[in-house]
Amino acid sequence: MTIRPVELSKAYRLLQLGATTMLSAKHQDDADVMAAAWVGLGGPNKVIAYLGTQSYTRKLVEKSGYFVVHIPTVQQMETVLYVGGHSKFTSPKKLENMPLFYQDGCDIPLVTGSAGYLLCKVVHNAQQEQQFDSFMGEIVSAWADSRIFDGRHWLFDEAPEELRTVHYVAGGQFYAMGRGTKFNHGPGQD
Amino acid sequence: MTIRPVELSKAYRLLQLGATTMLSAKHQDDADVMAAAWVGLGGPNKVIAYLGTQSYTRKLVEKSGYFVVHIPTVQQMETVLYVGGHSKFTSPKKLENMPLFYQDGCDIPLVTGSAGYLLCKVVHNAQQEQQFDSFMGEIVSAWADSRIFDGRHWLFDEAPEELRTVHYVAGGQFYAMGRGTKFNHGPGQD
Repeated sequence: MTIRPVELSKAYRLLQLGATTMLSAKHQDDADVMAAAWVGLGGPNKVIAYLGTQSYTRKLVEKSGYFVVHIPTVQQMETVLYVGGHSKFTSPKKLENMPLFYQDGCDIPLVTGSAGYLLCKVVHNAQQEQQFDSFMGEIVSAWADSRIFDGRHWLFDEAPEELRTVHYVAGGQFYAMGRGTKFNHGPGQD
Repeated sequence: MTIRPVELSKAYRLLQLGATTMLSAKHQDDADVMAAAWVGLGGPNKVIAYLGTQSYTRKLVEKSGYFVVHIPTVQQMETVLYVGGHSKFTSPKKLENMPLFYQDGCDIPLVTGSAGYLLCKVVHNAQQEQQFDSFMGEIVSAWADSRIFDGRHWLFDEAPEELRTVHYVAGGQFYAMGRGTKFNHGPGQD
């Protein structure tokens, strides 16, 4: 198994590349997974996710107070389109053929094959949620595929192409993350 | 000149790839540019930007109510590190050697060489700003380099490598955006 825990102090790096995400949530026995292009960092250890009112997953987030942000990979592009194109309101068996797994301490299902996973606890702000469909979450646990994230840095240039993150444009068009460059005089901690 | 206006209904696509950004702002004659990795879409035509209290640019945003999100390119990686590593509080001549230009209807300077620019008007929410350093902006104008964004889609695969967007990790490490893929059965309008 290549999925390993990531220290909370480095978990933001999983989201900072700005990949298109999938979001999973669960309330009692009801789980769902959605595609979410508008999910980003909202501060140290904070995620901000746009969850439209038509989203089934949003109802589960509202009831449970938790969600998991997935960082999908090239091998999951069709999965991202599938979950984005089907609502559990009209396709109740949406997750039936999806490869899911669980991590210790997280009862929300994770979709197999993503680069990373961020378990977030909702920090409620009624105005932002109701007026702007904007949900803030605090990252409480994180995991990543150790073949492409060593706990501190991404390793795309040493890994298979199908493990790169994906960045959605529109109309079925994606870009994959490309080549890395390292400057020695960069600010910040390594 | 390859910088052309982008329709507001498509402007979100400039930010949706999740690139690291630069942010410029101006109050009276005082302008600044900062690097901002935590800037993303917060809804239709909405941007959410994390602006730490130590940021000089934040003061200008607070006073003027406007900011410009830049989508930098590979040719600007050193510029992103420079503006991120120098504060106007301690380097008052920070912008002196920076190539800047202006667009009609926007008196905030833009840094030459970015893929796109989004002029945003702050939608104030005192709690989000003070408690979380999180600022929401409504996109009111947008421009892009027509060599890489045709008004609807990115054209990276047909353009020089140095015009790809950049995605910052930490410690001077960046990734450039990579290759595109198109699925015909994607949801959403083209």
